[in-house]
Amino acid sequence: MNLLLLSNSTNFGESYMNHALPVLGSFLKNCSNIVFVPYAGVTVSWDDYEKKVQQVLSALSLEVRSVHHLQDPAKAIENADAILVGGGNTFRLLQLLQQNKLITAIRERVESGVRYVGWSAGSNVAGKTICTTNDMPIVQPESFNALGLVPFQINPHFTEARLPNHGGETRTDRLKEYLELNREGRVVCLPEGTWLIQEQDVKTTGGGDVWLMEFGKEMEKTGEVINRIWN
Amino acid sequence: MNLLLLSNSTNFGESYMNHALPVLGSFLKNCSNIVFVPYAGVTVSWDDYEKKVQQVLSALSLEVRSVHHLQDPAKAIENADAILVGGGNTFRLLQLLQQNKLITAIRERVESGVRYVGWSAGSNVAGKTICTTNDMPIVQPESFNALGLVPFQINPHFTEARLPNHGGETRTDRLKEYLELNREGRVVCLPEGTWLIQEQDVKTTGGGDVWLMEFGKEMEKTGEVINRIWN
Repeated sequence: MNLLLLSNSTNFGESYMNHALPVLGSFLKNCSNIVFVPYAGVTVSWDDYEKKVQQVLSALSLEVRSVHHLQDPAKAIENADAILVGGGNTFRLLQLLQQNKLITAIRERVESGVRYVGWSAGSNVAGKTICTTNDMPIVQPESFNALGLVPFQINPHFTEARLPNHGGETRTDRLKEYLELNREGRVVCLPEGTWLIQEQDVKTTGGGDVWLMEFGKEMEKTGEVINRIWN
Repeated sequence: MNLLLLSNSTNFGESYMNHALPVLGSFLKNCSNIVFVPYAGVTVSWDDYEKKVQQVLSALSLEVRSVHHLQDPAKAIENADAILVGGGNTFRLLQLLQQNKLITAIRERVESGVRYVGWSAGSNVAGKTICTTNDMPIVQPESFNALGLVPFQINPHFTEARLPNHGGETRTDRLKEYLELNREGRVVCLPEGTWLIQEQDVKTTGGGDVWLMEFGKEMEKTGEVINRIWN
């Protein structure tokens, strides 16, 4: 498989996808039929979302077409050589992937070598379930099971920061709750600016330190353990 | 109905429930059979959670008993004159309320006058659905439909703050996404330290400003509109 799973689209204070341009350019090099899945976009129109992504890809001399223009989005997936799944709300994204019968369609294409790029919600759904998303459950998908392109959970936008003068759980608290009830689960935590990348059998991380959380263990950098968890 | 819906248990820098002691004392005055629902607690044992809540109630000369000691938790609800539902993870809380057949049991008792106190997740489930929780979807409940003791959504721990040097959505962004897909929805936003309280027909707010979000409108203070939304 060929996967590029980005934590986020926009680093603080930078322009859209600026930090990811080099890795996107190299990962999508030679792709001529790139399709975009805009379903996570809720308060943006899908036309506008497509334009925003096209603008990024234009800088790499690439073209993209959003599946929302087609009567049969599964057909677009079938003919693609790269599938881009954008960020937004993970529950809405998964609901529409399920309703449009794209779960199996995407999984099968990616398993046969088609390149998959996700960011934020688009990375969340590449994991086994969406149980470690940060998003609000604004709609109810049929199930929390996701594409399962990687054998673990993803937490994008990972941070250990606390809001000043605010109580409530930290991200780490929330992920520990997940692991308490899902003890076999493994969570790959992607701080903003980082990503996971797989090209054929080569699996690695980029953009900075990426962390692994498991039940009853100290958090550790995945750089040292990537082969243990990703197989 | 008699409801006390607190945003949170612990104000920043204060001890557990400190800010809520006076209102809890007056709301639960004369209650002699107070039951506690600890299901939202995930990384705390339910025995410890019960002790923590008992400690607070002891300062008010009140006693509480957690439903987890009983074979038939619905029976405990039936005999209670006050039901306390604690914070933690909203998805876990709702899942266990559903599995233990407590949704209807609690709703019926509260509709016939039994006092309900919720904080954080316990306030979330008093709303129509849990679609405006801040919690991570660590388990999948049967449905997102909740107790519906109030005719709107609740967002506890409400804040407009941003993590420094971090992208991603603000709380307001997330709630706007909810309203985009649920245009009839109304969200009552409870900043930490605030609450909603209903005693018979008197409905009001406490602890500070409470906010209302509706689709396509500016956020407004509920003080001015409480009767319009809560009926």
